[in-house]
Formats: sequence, structure tokens, C-alpha cells
Amino acid sequence: MSKLFTKTYKEAPKDEVSKNAALLLRAGYIHKELAGVYDFLPLGFIALQNIISIIRKHMNALGAMEMQMSALQNKSVWEQTNRWSDDMVDVWFKTQLHVGGELGLAFTHEEPITAMMKKHISSHKDLPVLVYQFQRKFRNEVRAKSGIMRTREFIMKDLYSFAASQEEHEQIYEAVSDAYIKIFDELGIGDKTYKTFASGGVFSKYSHEFQTETEVGEDIIYIDDETGIAVNEEVFTDEVLSDLGLEKDKMRKANASEVGNIFSLGTRFSDALNLNFKDSNGESKAVIMGSYGIGPARVLGVVVELMSDDDGLVLPWNIAPFNVHIISINENDKALELKLELEKQGFTVILDDRDESPGAKFKDADLIGLPVQVMVSQKAQEAGGFELKERQSKERKILTKDELISFLNEYAKN
Amino acid sequence: MSKLFTKTYKEAPKDEVSKNAALLLRAGYIHKELAGVYDFLPLGFIALQNIISIIRKHMNALGAMEMQMSALQNKSVWEQTNRWSDDMVDVWFKTQLHVGGELGLAFTHEEPITAMMKKHISSHKDLPVLVYQFQRKFRNEVRAKSGIMRTREFIMKDLYSFAASQEEHEQIYEAVSDAYIKIFDELGIGDKTYKTFASGGVFSKYSHEFQTETEVGEDIIYIDDETGIAVNEEVFTDEVLSDLGLEKDKMRKANASEVGNIFSLGTRFSDALNLNFKDSNGESKAVIMGSYGIGPARVLGVVVELMSDDDGLVLPWNIAPFNVHIISINENDKALELKLELEKQGFTVILDDRDESPGAKFKDADLIGLPVQVMVSQKAQEAGGFELKERQSKERKILTKDELISFLNEYAKN
Repeated sequence: MSKLFTKTYKEAPKDEVSKNAALLLRAGYIHKELAGVYDFLPLGFIALQNIISIIRKHMNALGAMEMQMSALQNKSVWEQTNRWSDDMVDVWFKTQLHVGGELGLAFTHEEPITAMMKKHISSHKDLPVLVYQFQRKFRNEVRAKSGIMRTREFIMKDLYSFAASQEEHEQIYEAVSDAYIKIFDELGIGDKTYKTFASGGVFSKYSHEFQTETEVGEDIIYIDDETGIAVNEEVFTDEVLSDLGLEKDKMRKANASEVGNIFSLGTRFSDALNLNFKDSNGESKAVIMGSYGIGPARVLGVVVELMSDDDGLVLPWNIAPFNVHIISINENDKALELKLELEKQGFTVILDDRDESPGAKFKDADLIGLPVQVMVSQKAQEAGGFELKERQSKERKILTKDELISFLNEYAKN
Repeated sequence: MSKLFTKTYKEAPKDEVSKNAALLLRAGYIHKELAGVYDFLPLGFIALQNIISIIRKHMNALGAMEMQMSALQNKSVWEQTNRWSDDMVDVWFKTQLHVGGELGLAFTHEEPITAMMKKHISSHKDLPVLVYQFQRKFRNEVRAKSGIMRTREFIMKDLYSFAASQEEHEQIYEAVSDAYIKIFDELGIGDKTYKTFASGGVFSKYSHEFQTETEVGEDIIYIDDETGIAVNEEVFTDEVLSDLGLEKDKMRKANASEVGNIFSLGTRFSDALNLNFKDSNGESKAVIMGSYGIGPARVLGVVVELMSDDDGLVLPWNIAPFNVHIISINENDKALELKLELEKQGFTVILDDRDESPGAKFKDADLIGLPVQVMVSQKAQEAGGFELKERQSKERKILTKDELISFLNEYAKN
């Protein structure tokens, strides 16, 4: 921590009204460039990368390939789907080329990826295709008061699928849905995240959102706790409930934040942009598409809203920038020795070797919110080893080095 | 390759005048969104990530910390350094907030990082700081004809240093310079890359560019082959040569492409934005800054310009998206077995298991340009194993599996 340039703050800036951004700012995870635009400083960057790595693992397991498209967008492609006009899309940021011509900043990528695929898909043998990216999206939001949960610039994981038939598409759709459930479980918010029926489009009756129950969520959903199914307020009608076999009076209303969505696009984009393939009879057909998003920073924001206390962040093991926060109390050599040993065992560790009072170090460790704190002090050594504190339960105990390693191995499993 | 959606092309689009983009387009590494704006498709994405990983490793070795700042830029910060006006900076892309107000798209990040550091640097104890990012830059170029070597949107590694004294700054500057030499060596262009004296600014007589000799380079440099020192045309004067102890008639003129630069900023930005610290006497002083850039896509473009032949790309081991290209000639099972075995040995492998003719597969393998090709065929098995072809030398030989693994281990070392 003597090399980490970020400082912690007792108070968040007065203009920061959201809990997630206030805590992340205080702990030095993020910096606010302007309303709805944040930088990710080293701790926040690692946490975000941890989320991204988990999502990436599950995308690769689906057989999806990673790539990266541009943020600058060609007007002509968006005109073909009638989504260039600000009347149709109210979140565009647009800009001008010096050589003449207007460009957009991607708020999503359906249009360019459909146009791009025309160079690569021509036969049923080329299908299915699953391709994804982690790429910056820009949205000209009028409201930007939810911290890092709704921003004007953010990284999004967007996966696109291209299928030869509705049946093939539905298989992919279900596989992605299953992957999303695994992802949110692994991110530590599985028990509060509901697969939620939401309005579809021309090509499907419903789409699905993954909604995490949280007080500050901008959406209203109705949850059936027995089945774990939820319905977005926008489609919470008697007709839909009967369609889904749900009973109105068994469902409870909750605020929720959308952490992911999966969407059947049908031939909406392939028709508009002429993305066709020849089937096995040589007949030309439009490709059937799906799109599937997760916003890693939104997930981090939701996690902070759900997992924090008066002292600061309480991050889950899989997201925290480090597993272990070692606090040296005038024992920098011994503390460094422990750090190297724990790293050898495969744990990630930050060591507070600063020239600060123990009290200041304890406060910072609680604010930064890594799951496990270990105090290295004369007193703990006299008591038999190291003093461990679980950030969430605040329980403390003295452990030998071997006991500490066993404890961490157990912790990592849960 | 049956799962890789990208196709190869015999011809590049007629409007693609640069060799690097033409080859990368044909091989399916990239897609052109518009002039000067490219997507990185799976093969190109992996190659770019390989370059990024090497740069990241050397940045971390310097003790620099990674973070990620926003692309959207606050006008007020840039006004303080007099770099907001289009008269001062001719590559700005600007855009408008719906709620009112103008924003810029980052063409670099000196201003926002200096402003951000005011929250974290206040004492000499906080210095030095080295921090870097891989982040998208946007430049409203009038000319965009060099393929991926000069684009309107690109990822840049930008490192910034903050020091308490000129001496401390110079130590960092030299350490970064040394790291850059290692990076370009590891990327396979070290022997053609020259540390080049270029014009400085108010705070330093010279800056340094890392220039790679290539016919299509936009810069002119003069190289002293004996010392390996080069001088940019812009400072190639008798005065400078005598200053550097170089002799004009021993230097040869060459076209070169700038793959990196290191720059002493002095207090240009810290003065304008009031980034100060208290020294050990409690006196307030301006922080001394440096900035250090490398464009990974520009590096990839230069590599393609230097390393390719009539048949396609010839990528170095450390950059190629895979080490080995296995070509199955009606032997998919045996080929898959070999792929798994080589992966177990730590090599990355792509397997051409498509239902294509051997000739088409050979052509594609040459175009895609991985360093080592291995043919799995009945004929090779009868001759004793697998047929190996080095992409660069085009030499072929028959090797047993163990000989192949030894060969690859040797190849990886060079």
C-alpha cells in the first residue's frame, strides 16, 4: 500500500448521491470525471477485471469467440435499421469528422456486427456463430445519479448469436441463460438475482432480464419466491401471469437493478441489413439473431449496494481486488514474509506497510473491504501467530500460519 | 477453424491502399468500419492482446499500476492547459451532452490524469507514482491511409510518471526507456527499432521516439548504425549532431514508423492544473511529470509491413494468435489428438478441421501466417510422423511427435 497512489477519504464529495459511487470514491476505487463518467483506479480496475474474467470464462465455455469492434459508428449502417435519428434513439452521442460527415459513438453494436457478418456468413455451414466483446458503450443519459450503475460511458459484455433456424436460436438462448445464472452465482449475487420476464419485440413474446433485488434499483419487478421467477412491472398483467402460470397474490413487489439481459432479435437486423445465408437446399434465408448483455461496472455497483456496511465495502472473494489484506503493525519484515508465502499458495494479497497508525490502517482496511484481514503484530505473535478478521462477520481469531492457509482455502471454496 | 467464423479473401477491397490492412483484412484479422476505423476480429484480437500482454508485463516490472480512465473528457480541464480549442489541437472529436455542455473524446490523457492526481498526491511521501492504462484514443485525422498504423480510434498504452525532483524524473525516464527496448525486442522488431532523438518542449531539449525502420513509415530519421542512435529529421541540424557527438556523413536516411515515445513534461501540466506537493521542508512545489506511449495496433501494423511475403502474414512467435497451425488432411481424429498434446505442452494451437481441399487449407495457413504449420496426413504418417513447415523459411521436414515438441521448445526460445 506504500506504492498504491490512491488515498482513502472519510467523506464522499457532497454531489455524489449514490451509495455505490460514494463508497468506491472514498475507498479510492474510482474517480469521477464528470456526472455519469468514472475512471477506474487500480483497486477498481482489478475488481472490474475480476468480474470481466468470470464473464469471459463462461462466454468461452459457450464456444463464443472474443473480438473488439470500434466505438466510432458509421451513420449509413444505422440508417438502414432506422436507428440513426435522435427521435428513434435518445441516447446517441454524435460527432463530426474533420473531413466531413457525421459519426455516432456506439450505444450498442447490433448494426455494425450484422453488417460485418455479411463478409463472413453465406452458407448454413457457417452457422451458428457466437461472438462477444468487452467494449465501451456511450449513452447520452439525461439522468446520471446512480453512481456506476448508470453511466454515460461504460464497458459492456455484448454477445451476439447468429443461427440458421429458430430451433437453433432457442438452444443458444437457453445455453446463454444458463451461463448467466452461473455467472451471477460466481459473482456472489446469485441468490438475489432473478431471471425476469420482460417485454419482447416483434420476434418474441418476451425477453429476459436478470434483475438483482436492491433498494436503489430503477426497475420494479414482481417475484414468485417459490419458483424464483420474476416478472417486470411492464408486463405484469393478468394475461401474462396466466400465460406463465403465476399467481398474482403470491408475488411480492421489489426494486431491482438489471445486471444482464438476453434478447431474441429474430430477423429484425438481418432483414434490414441483408444478412442472409443459403440453406442446405440452396435457398436464401435471413439469419436469426440474438443479443445478450452484461455490464461489469453495473454489477460492481450492485454488489456494493448489497454488500457494504457503515465501515465501508464488503466485497465477495471473487470480485475483491485482493483476497487478503495484511496489516503490518511495526512488523514489515514478518508481514512481507507472510505475503510472499500466501502468494505462493495462490492467494492475492495487499500489504499495508505504510507509516501510519494501526487505527488508521484498520479503518482503511475496513473501507477497502477485502474479505479477509490479517494483522501481523508482536501481540498476535505472542498469542500464537496472526490475528485474522473476517470483514463481513467482523469475527477475529488467532491462527498459526498453517491454520491461516487452511482457513483461506476453505474460504475460497465458499 | 470450423468454429472460427472469419473467412479469408484472395483480394483485399480496392479502397484499402496499405499493405498491413490489406493483408490483415484478407486473413480475417480485422474488419474496416470506415476509413481509419477497424474492428479486431478473433485472430486480430488475440494478436493485439499478445502485444498488450508483453507491454503490460514490462509496465508492471517498472512498478507501474494499471487503471483505466474515461474516453469522455471534461472541457474545463482542457481549457486550463489551453488545449481545448481546435486551433490548438486539430485532432479533437467533440460531442454534446443532451443535458447541455460540450465534451471531448480523449486524444490523450495528460490533463485528466493531472487533475485526478490532485486528489491523491499532496506530499513528497506520495511520490514517485507510475500509472498506466490501455485505453482507447480518438483522433480526428484528416489522412487515414496507413491501415492500422494511423487510425481515428485506437488503443494506446499510456504511462504517466509523477516525480518530486528532476533527478527522480530522469531515473524513471531512463527506466522506461530501458523497458521499451526490452518490449520491442520481445515483440520481434528490436533489430529495426531505434531510439531516436526528437524535438523536446519547454522543459527538455529532446524527447525520444522509438522508430522502426520501414518503407511506409511516415517519418524520416537518420541512423548511425555504429551506435544504433537515430535522429529525427526535425532536429537533424549541425548543432544537434555536434551536441550528440554524431557525424553527419556516417548517418543514413531512412523511412520509419514511430512505435513508441517517451516525453519529459516538466511542470507544463502540474503548473496549469495546480498539482503540487509539500517537500520535506514543507515547501510547496509542482510535480514533475513524464508521459510514455505505445500503440499496440501500430506495432501490429509495423510487424505486418516488415514480416510478410507474397503468400500472406509471417507473424513472430510472441505476436501470432497461435503458435501452431495444424492442418488435417482427412485425419481429424489424429490431428485433434496432436492439438491436445501440444496444448498440454503449453503451446497454443489452431486446427484446420474444415471440409476443404488440402490446397485451400495450405493457402489459408500461409495467409494467416502462424510461425509453424504441421500437416497431419496419411502420407506424413507413412514417412514417420508429421510434416512440419516453418512459415518464414518455408522449409519442410518430417518429425516424430517428440521431435516436433523439441523443435517447438527450441523455436519458442528464439
